[in-house]
Amino acid sequence: MLSMETIAYNLPQNHIPQTWCNILPDLPVPMAPPLHPGTLQPLGPDDLAPLFPMALIMQEVSTEREIEIPGEVRQIYAQWRPSPLMRARRLEKALDTPAHIYYKNEGVSPAGSHKLNTAVAQAWYNKQEGVRHLSTETGAGQWGSALSMACAFLGLDCKVFMVRVSYDQKPYRRALMETFGASVTASPSPFTDSGRAILAEHPDSPGSLGIAISEAVEVAAKDPGTKYALGSVLNHVLLHQTVIGQEAIEQMALAGDDPDVIIGCTGGGSNFAGLVMPFLGRKLKGKCHARIVAVEPAACPSLTKGHFAYDFGDTGHLTPLVKMHTLGSSFIPPGIHAGGLRYHGMAPLVSHVVNLGLAEATTVHQLDAFAAGIQFARAEGIVPAPEANHAVAEAIRQALEAKAEGKPRVILFNLSGHGHFDMQSYIAYQAGKLENYEYPAEEIAMALAGLPAVP
Amino acid sequence: MLSMETIAYNLPQNHIPQTWCNILPDLPVPMAPPLHPGTLQPLGPDDLAPLFPMALIMQEVSTEREIEIPGEVRQIYAQWRPSPLMRARRLEKALDTPAHIYYKNEGVSPAGSHKLNTAVAQAWYNKQEGVRHLSTETGAGQWGSALSMACAFLGLDCKVFMVRVSYDQKPYRRALMETFGASVTASPSPFTDSGRAILAEHPDSPGSLGIAISEAVEVAAKDPGTKYALGSVLNHVLLHQTVIGQEAIEQMALAGDDPDVIIGCTGGGSNFAGLVMPFLGRKLKGKCHARIVAVEPAACPSLTKGHFAYDFGDTGHLTPLVKMHTLGSSFIPPGIHAGGLRYHGMAPLVSHVVNLGLAEATTVHQLDAFAAGIQFARAEGIVPAPEANHAVAEAIRQALEAKAEGKPRVILFNLSGHGHFDMQSYIAYQAGKLENYEYPAEEIAMALAGLPAVP
Repeated sequence: MLSMETIAYNLPQNHIPQTWCNILPDLPVPMAPPLHPGTLQPLGPDDLAPLFPMALIMQEVSTEREIEIPGEVRQIYAQWRPSPLMRARRLEKALDTPAHIYYKNEGVSPAGSHKLNTAVAQAWYNKQEGVRHLSTETGAGQWGSALSMACAFLGLDCKVFMVRVSYDQKPYRRALMETFGASVTASPSPFTDSGRAILAEHPDSPGSLGIAISEAVEVAAKDPGTKYALGSVLNHVLLHQTVIGQEAIEQMALAGDDPDVIIGCTGGGSNFAGLVMPFLGRKLKGKCHARIVAVEPAACPSLTKGHFAYDFGDTGHLTPLVKMHTLGSSFIPPGIHAGGLRYHGMAPLVSHVVNLGLAEATTVHQLDAFAAGIQFARAEGIVPAPEANHAVAEAIRQALEAKAEGKPRVILFNLSGHGHFDMQSYIAYQAGKLENYEYPAEEIAMALAGLPAVP
Repeated sequence: MLSMETIAYNLPQNHIPQTWCNILPDLPVPMAPPLHPGTLQPLGPDDLAPLFPMALIMQEVSTEREIEIPGEVRQIYAQWRPSPLMRARRLEKALDTPAHIYYKNEGVSPAGSHKLNTAVAQAWYNKQEGVRHLSTETGAGQWGSALSMACAFLGLDCKVFMVRVSYDQKPYRRALMETFGASVTASPSPFTDSGRAILAEHPDSPGSLGIAISEAVEVAAKDPGTKYALGSVLNHVLLHQTVIGQEAIEQMALAGDDPDVIIGCTGGGSNFAGLVMPFLGRKLKGKCHARIVAVEPAACPSLTKGHFAYDFGDTGHLTPLVKMHTLGSSFIPPGIHAGGLRYHGMAPLVSHVVNLGLAEATTVHQLDAFAAGIQFARAEGIVPAPEANHAVAEAIRQALEAKAEGKPRVILFNLSGHGHFDMQSYIAYQAGKLENYEYPAEEIAMALAGLPAVP
């Protein structure tokens, strides 16, 4: 019998991290604080209390390096965690590259993406504080599916505002959320002031994440029994994702390889942060030499073409102001199929580390992303979510660069989710119906001109 | 910190079984041989040579207890094997049952079901014998997806005849196969004699597995460069699935539990056989006391209402005659959503062990299957394929029986695949549009009356 090449670096259930890894105390420069949208003064915990349970608010600003993961959350994580670290040996062979390509497969979560890592945690902390109803938004549907599932596990009600264009194009995503017992509403909806305001002006609005956030926040702000849950952007959300990177550090050691480059796609920034922040913590201590690369779609280039400035998280200007790379809250991204990457802003933490030069940002065009995803699928069997295809494309680019140089390179990327609910975009791509899109500079300039004036 | 309850019983990559487990030499009564459809004499290996590579033909009749798994096949298995054995503790709590419920999760395969276990093996043996093209049929699409993926891994061409009703209703399944590079044709098609004959009589035929098999077999029989691959029914196909049961035996020992009942859904019989045959081997040696239960849809009850008789595997009568539980090859099953269970026959090996009383058969109605699947999804997060819902329903029935008796019971079932490409059926169920269906006795009698006369 031939000896086997190891391709799966799996850890047993008791190696699920016991703490989340908080990079904030180790940052060389602290992050700018979120500001109250009315007073422009730094927010206090009470300002956020209508939206979030206090435990999550405290995590948002915590300076503890390690935050204990509640036992029941770890117990639920055991359903799919530790997630596999895989070496893509067939892809390496297909590319004929000397590079080693590893990917962390977050698509094995029952919700299909990394989003479940924070959904379970958020639902749990809300339940601890007596909350019974959560409201949220979803674009492509990964986050809505994850929160619906977490609420089913923990016995909470879940109301999801789903961006209209996704609601219409992705009935199976909706069905998945409804299977878990969630109620799903197309956004903009006639049920909120924010939604009605948009519909009055644009009755056929396809919606956007920014609009859906406004609706979900409004519902929570007006109903004392409902809190709001968010799938990305905020510190506590990114924090919950750090189980990914912590596991990956242990698994890369198992593999006996040290990454030269670590890659994640970025929309709001959570899967990227989840993988890279634990490595960045080591890098700041001189224990990791890897380049850290954020990959965003050329059609929604907040990190590469936006301003690093205070802006609203939503279209309706109900959220606090946060300092982030942004294209302006009035920016409506074009309908690229990576719905999870269609957001005008970027997580303040991710924006901050890119601004400090601790991570780089690059862009990938839609057609290159799909071509990479299909090449990956034929080699590795897994059809990635369109969002993850951006990370795949950059990993392949890096592997081909190593080949051109004739040098080894150890590449690690986050396969943040599978594409089983995104096949319509693969059909469109394979039928030649997709296009690359680059937002005209003058339109970006116009959206940026609308940024709020903050002294 | 709370100590964790173990819910995942995982094995490392090097515990992938080294051999497939062949029950044939241990059966108390040998199976009846397949017959040549023309002469009605037992088939020789040469009769099957136009359709299958010789290695698979020899496996079909092998009397070796253990058949070595080729190194490259094991290497590909490492992409997802050993698959997890999970304890459904949240479902147990939801049911408030003293039973322990375990499931083997074959849905983690990148193709989404157990089918990839045999697809990889079949593609590999064909490639070894110089075959470059495979033809096959698919109903719900699990098998077609698996063979397409295996062919992508091994560099073979794959032509899939997809039952027309699925082809129209499941564009995303089709897209998945095409993403892996397969060509997909709706069946009945105008490209084969079998297809043309059906279309001449029924231009709007929704197709059936039996028709699609005829088309795929015809293509292979007429083209020396093309062989045929089958996703169930035959001995060698079931053999390849025995990795499931072998892993489960080791994992149940890890869990410290000994199954009282082992459950699989049955369409052609391969996921059921894959799980139970290794246990049955132990049972025949007095080392396992479990009841073994096959669950079929009430709407397509080959094991419970069919005859145990020689019949054709296809509608066009191109295949050999095999002795199996059958409803008659002219039986067109109603359009229940568990497409993988819509087949007139049953694997001869499964039929044989049920006939010998070594396994039991029972039925589940469609609405009960979906209700069980949704209960399972809300507790465990995984939306099962409609086929697997039949096994889930029986597992829940057993768990509630244990509860009524106030006694423990260890239940193991095969979660043969996920339902990500079957959400349309969940939508229909939740909209109240599905019905139970029981085939009228007189129609079954009529189909059975058409069974071929074999002395």
